[in-house]
Amino acid sequence: MPTEEAQDLIDLTREICDKELRPAVDEAERAAASGESFPTEVFRTLGRAGLLSLPHPEQFGGYGQPYEVYLQVVEEIASAWMSVAVGVSVHSLTAYPVTTFGTPAQQEALLPGMLSGEQLGAYCLSEQQAGSDVGSMTTRAVADATGAGEPTGYTVRGRKAWISHAGHADYYTTFARTSDDGSRGLSCLVVPGDAPGLSFGAPERKMGLHCDTVREVMFDDVPVEASRRIGAEGQGMAIALSALDAGRLGIAAAATGLAQSALDLAASYAKERRQFGRAIADNQGLAFLIADMEAAVTSARATYLHAARLKDAGRAFSKEAAVAKLTATDAAMRVTTDAVQVLGGAGYTQDFPAERFMREAKVTQIFEGTNQIQRLVISRHVLR
Amino acid sequence: MPTEEAQDLIDLTREICDKELRPAVDEAERAAASGESFPTEVFRTLGRAGLLSLPHPEQFGGYGQPYEVYLQVVEEIASAWMSVAVGVSVHSLTAYPVTTFGTPAQQEALLPGMLSGEQLGAYCLSEQQAGSDVGSMTTRAVADATGAGEPTGYTVRGRKAWISHAGHADYYTTFARTSDDGSRGLSCLVVPGDAPGLSFGAPERKMGLHCDTVREVMFDDVPVEASRRIGAEGQGMAIALSALDAGRLGIAAAATGLAQSALDLAASYAKERRQFGRAIADNQGLAFLIADMEAAVTSARATYLHAARLKDAGRAFSKEAAVAKLTATDAAMRVTTDAVQVLGGAGYTQDFPAERFMREAKVTQIFEGTNQIQRLVISRHVLR
Amino acid sequence: MPTEEAQDLIDLTREICDKELRPAVDEAERAAASGESFPTEVFRTLGRAGLLSLPHPEQFGGYGQPYEVYLQVVEEIASAWMSVAVGVSVHSLTAYPVTTFGTPAQQEALLPGMLSGEQLGAYCLSEQQAGSDVGSMTTRAVADATGAGEPTGYTVRGRKAWISHAGHADYYTTFARTSDDGSRGLSCLVVPGDAPGLSFGAPERKMGLHCDTVREVMFDDVPVEASRRIGAEGQGMAIALSALDAGRLGIAAAATGLAQSALDLAASYAKERRQFGRAIADNQGLAFLIADMEAAVTSARATYLHAARLKDAGRAFSKEAAVAKLTATDAAMRVTTDAVQVLGGAGYTQDFPAERFMREAKVTQIFEGTNQIQRLVISRHVLR
Amino acid sequence: MPTEEAQDLIDLTREICDKELRPAVDEAERAAASGESFPTEVFRTLGRAGLLSLPHPEQFGGYGQPYEVYLQVVEEIASAWMSVAVGVSVHSLTAYPVTTFGTPAQQEALLPGMLSGEQLGAYCLSEQQAGSDVGSMTTRAVADATGAGEPTGYTVRGRKAWISHAGHADYYTTFARTSDDGSRGLSCLVVPGDAPGLSFGAPERKMGLHCDTVREVMFDDVPVEASRRIGAEGQGMAIALSALDAGRLGIAAAATGLAQSALDLAASYAKERRQFGRAIADNQGLAFLIADMEAAVTSARATYLHAARLKDAGRAFSKEAAVAKLTATDAAMRVTTDAVQVLGGAGYTQDFPAERFMREAKVTQIFEGTNQIQRLVISRHVLR
Repeated sequence: MPTEEAQDLIDLTREICDKELRPAVDEAERAAASGESFPTEVFRTLGRAGLLSLPHPEQFGGYGQPYEVYLQVVEEIASAWMSVAVGVSVHSLTAYPVTTFGTPAQQEALLPGMLSGEQLGAYCLSEQQAGSDVGSMTTRAVADATGAGEPTGYTVRGRKAWISHAGHADYYTTFARTSDDGSRGLSCLVVPGDAPGLSFGAPERKMGLHCDTVREVMFDDVPVEASRRIGAEGQGMAIALSALDAGRLGIAAAATGLAQSALDLAASYAKERRQFGRAIADNQGLAFLIADMEAAVTSARATYLHAARLKDAGRAFSKEAAVAKLTATDAAMRVTTDAVQVLGGAGYTQDFPAERFMREAKVTQIFEGTNQIQRLVISRHVLR
Repeated sequence: MPTEEAQDLIDLTREICDKELRPAVDEAERAAASGESFPTEVFRTLGRAGLLSLPHPEQFGGYGQPYEVYLQVVEEIASAWMSVAVGVSVHSLTAYPVTTFGTPAQQEALLPGMLSGEQLGAYCLSEQQAGSDVGSMTTRAVADATGAGEPTGYTVRGRKAWISHAGHADYYTTFARTSDDGSRGLSCLVVPGDAPGLSFGAPERKMGLHCDTVREVMFDDVPVEASRRIGAEGQGMAIALSALDAGRLGIAAAATGLAQSALDLAASYAKERRQFGRAIADNQGLAFLIADMEAAVTSARATYLHAARLKDAGRAFSKEAAVAKLTATDAAMRVTTDAVQVLGGAGYTQDFPAERFMREAKVTQIFEGTNQIQRLVISRHVLR
Repeated sequence: MPTEEAQDLIDLTREICDKELRPAVDEAERAAASGESFPTEVFRTLGRAGLLSLPHPEQFGGYGQPYEVYLQVVEEIASAWMSVAVGVSVHSLTAYPVTTFGTPAQQEALLPGMLSGEQLGAYCLSEQQAGSDVGSMTTRAVADATGAGEPTGYTVRGRKAWISHAGHADYYTTFARTSDDGSRGLSCLVVPGDAPGLSFGAPERKMGLHCDTVREVMFDDVPVEASRRIGAEGQGMAIALSALDAGRLGIAAAATGLAQSALDLAASYAKERRQFGRAIADNQGLAFLIADMEAAVTSARATYLHAARLKDAGRAFSKEAAVAKLTATDAAMRVTTDAVQVLGGAGYTQDFPAERFMREAKVTQIFEGTNQIQRLVISRHVLR
Repeated sequence: MPTEEAQDLIDLTREICDKELRPAVDEAERAAASGESFPTEVFRTLGRAGLLSLPHPEQFGGYGQPYEVYLQVVEEIASAWMSVAVGVSVHSLTAYPVTTFGTPAQQEALLPGMLSGEQLGAYCLSEQQAGSDVGSMTTRAVADATGAGEPTGYTVRGRKAWISHAGHADYYTTFARTSDDGSRGLSCLVVPGDAPGLSFGAPERKMGLHCDTVREVMFDDVPVEASRRIGAEGQGMAIALSALDAGRLGIAAAATGLAQSALDLAASYAKERRQFGRAIADNQGLAFLIADMEAAVTSARATYLHAARLKDAGRAFSKEAAVAKLTATDAAMRVTTDAVQVLGGAGYTQDFPAERFMREAKVTQIFEGTNQIQRLVISRHVLR
């Protein structure tokens, strides 16, 4: 930890995790699997503790923490409750366009709420037919007919898919097409959660990460004031891309925390479970498996911290963020799968969280850019 | 296929899979996840078609098929419904002690029912504290006090864990301790499903393979006639071990079928899903991933067939069975995980069976001897 | 083994390997590394024993063995001397166009020598700028100006690269361009080894497989009679491709033999080398590594035999051949690298052949179509 | 880089690498392979530039650089010449016992030479039958018969195996047995290079890393003054172990540099080599392979730097050093093997250094504790 304040933040996070998150996660995830359920109160608790606005500048009401610290907080939360950690990372993205591309007036108007810890944001980028291929999005924001000059508002129409916090968010940082000019025709709008015409699909039935409720968001002629457009018309793609790298680091940190929990569970079980008259941890074959899990977790953590320090130092970190996302999420998939293996039959039951960890790990290889997209990004850097 | 009859069997299996299994699997697995549900009717259908007694000798009412053929039927069933394929493999094991170690009288008494296709068997070997370590089992079969000579019956007391078909089986091929002499003190008993004192725990809440209902089986002073003891007292371990190799081949074949289904789904999705203006299958990175999946499935199949042919030729196949189990189940885990990846976000939802395949694959690395146990078996063969 | 004759062939091969190949390989490979040296006598010995013409039809003087048998002979030879096994596989390819596409007259003229066991062939397909991309080859065979009708001969001009047996072969099965029509403009010619204008570059300095001497072959206006053109003009690509699948199986079998030797060495060393008061084989971590090596070798063998049986049964085997090549050569690379690891420091010295095995394994992932090309082939089959 | 001075050091290292190392490495390694040859002058050059004493305290004449910086210098050197980087790492170890466990008088007497940059040290720990199992060493240091009190000198007898710089070193930091008390009976002696009775075996014929000349060192009643014993009698094991962690970081950094060079070569080749009318880098299958190589190198670097920062901060880093050694050397093996693959046939020839990189990478998984030993170390930390 670089500073004492950072250490205090981690300690605070651990305390909240132990008191509020760990006791609640199993039941909440199970409940969310069958019907709807969302950990609103947990986000409120984190928000009140300041943990929802860590990386944002202090001048806007954020905590002004470097990514090196913010990400370790995310990792810590993920080790207790993966869905919540993913929510924290997503929420951080939603304010990013405003802190980075907003006008002073927009920052003054929007950030006090966004960074208050009382609100939760959603990030409306992907569509059913526009996942990795952002440029093919079809949701439109039609400007008012104003004759000349800037429009006074937009009417948004379309559907966004796979949106975390949909139906629970206070605002929706939304990307929509303001012209037909491919990826140069996108703009960014902050849509209030209570805007007329905004509705939501049923929660996707997913393999795991159930408390990260994901739904379609339908924009049925939703009016949005022009003052809520962040950046210029057509700047949407640039804004979206600039948030991506930071978002990848959030996922890398969360995946590391998840993997660490799976490793801790496996190690603890291996020391207690006895077969053939001794702890199974005394079998070198299993001990080596656990050593490989530890190596994967430790190097995943080192890799995301390395990228974070580059970002904190104002240096290019796009390639390193993609490497961190790829490395940490592949590690999480492998380590959680092996944790189930270490627990054997017990690992395959819901009596232990190992099987949940494994189900949660899988999506980290898919969202915020599939690991195929990460390889594309990395290879372009290396081969240019 | 070695014979025309074998080809007919495969064709028949495919037809039943398409008509009866594939249309039912999704809903049945979902139902079984939340409450109790068991595909009794599906087993009856397979039984009436003769598919529950394929590898057993014709003289006893079996189909007299070589393992090379039987296993391809298991693979075919697994490609449609994994839980059922596992059930077929388990059921085959339950009659094996009788066909191999039973007296003519026992064979005459028991096999007509067991191989009728109307009955389903359970295999009661493992206990909570005796998984891989069979010799530490504590369930006891106490012989009647008869003075001298053979006992006329046994009283069984203890608990068996992780038993497939528990509560649904017509008989329980059970291993219990008849003396304190470690692994030489075990005996094999065929316990009727309606024996007094037999009861069952709640179904284990598992990660997947929900229609393979698994429970504890409690023996509360269950009386068993001496005529239902297969082999001599103390021969139980030898009987159990001799069934293991065949059981591993059954799992290898089932895992291969599961992996094949996942690959088929991924390939078909990749040809249809479009991003950046073309099918994602046109991206070489994804095509290579699919090539690796194909290589894994094809070599898993070749590996189990290789072991099966050794068995069919009456040659040693224990090492090869362990290799097949290890290779095919690791392949299934990798291929199903990658299938979810190919489908991306869609793969993570329950709208496609990819996520179910992945959950089902995991247990194949664990049961019938964890893959760590397989490595132990293999290394002992190589290093002796 | 399918027949007694096949078993006799394997026994004969083992005898020759033990008497002639194993005692000579280390010194010969070392000698070939620094200067030129070629195991001509070894090929003569194999030829006299009939082992150079196993898969070719008996009517032409071949042994008429199925690929299932021929490949096991190749594997056996590879376990003793990899360079020689590769040579046997390459040589088999050189006669293939004649047995398959030749006219009866050509077969009568050419095959008695080719299949005599006294001759060695070279396969001149690849060029410096045309490796996987056969269609871009520039070597030309210009037909005599004959007015109308078939030409009486060709003049060949160009350079072939990476040619095994160059300078030692009795004939060169050569592909050259007879028209500009891309991959449809190639033809196949059998060039005598003493043809005027034929010359050879210096042997490539390779990482290993030194006795597989590889050179450029320069065609400086080499005259070739029209009677030595196999198939029609323009049929060259089809001929080359049809030999490829069979060639891939040869490499798969050879790679399996190499891996088996590395595994045998590792297992034997692990049982003898003692550390911490016991054989290192008694450490489960190492034993599991060896189990994984065994699993890789056994499934590689099963995979190539599976493809071979398809070929022998006259069924499509192109995808399976590519899978076998990919699987077996990746296994060889992994197993040989791990064999060096098992031997530790000793494995890194030339006092044991482990390091040679590792150097030899690498090229199997590259030649007869890189493993990237295999993935391309496989994915096209799966995704079509 | 933490400081400007550190950046200057790296710049200086790069300059020396470009001017002196890169132009010489190919020929020197080839020469060393066949006969004897040793890059004495290269070490002198590095020594004069101060690069042989970077991590040692300034008070003793070292450069006082943190490991974070020293290791990046080692990585830089390794990217140009692996044998030399390994030599620098080994040399650093030889002075470590004196700086850490020596008396002020010993430090004053020995360190000016050791850290002058003019001398090279050898580290005599392992024996033929005592590799990982240090406690079973048999080399003896018999104390003079002095009646009571401290001995005035020792007579050393035995053989050390696998010693880098043997025959070229100015001094030999040697571990020998001063009592029969197992691992508590070892002591550490600094033996001058010109001590009577010291002789050397022939250089080991290795797979690669030829300029890291490795030999047996024979101690034939070599007299050593008591003042050259570092630490107390019996403290040898503790001294040896305390140097191990630092040594592992040196190897991790060197392996990273080697892997980076292999990646650079592969990327540059892939951009230039054309097949099917375009650069092979344009094939996504190859680009993804290169992305995975980049991810491996970047995370290896992050992992050793993470461990180095812990060490520099005075915190426990033993587990992290083992993780770094395991991760970086496995990465180097994989990346160099794949670099050969990217170059294809060209990669298999000595015309490019890819094949040398691969041969050099293998030993990094073996020395300074095999990767099996690293897994043992890691698992003990995790499972204690």
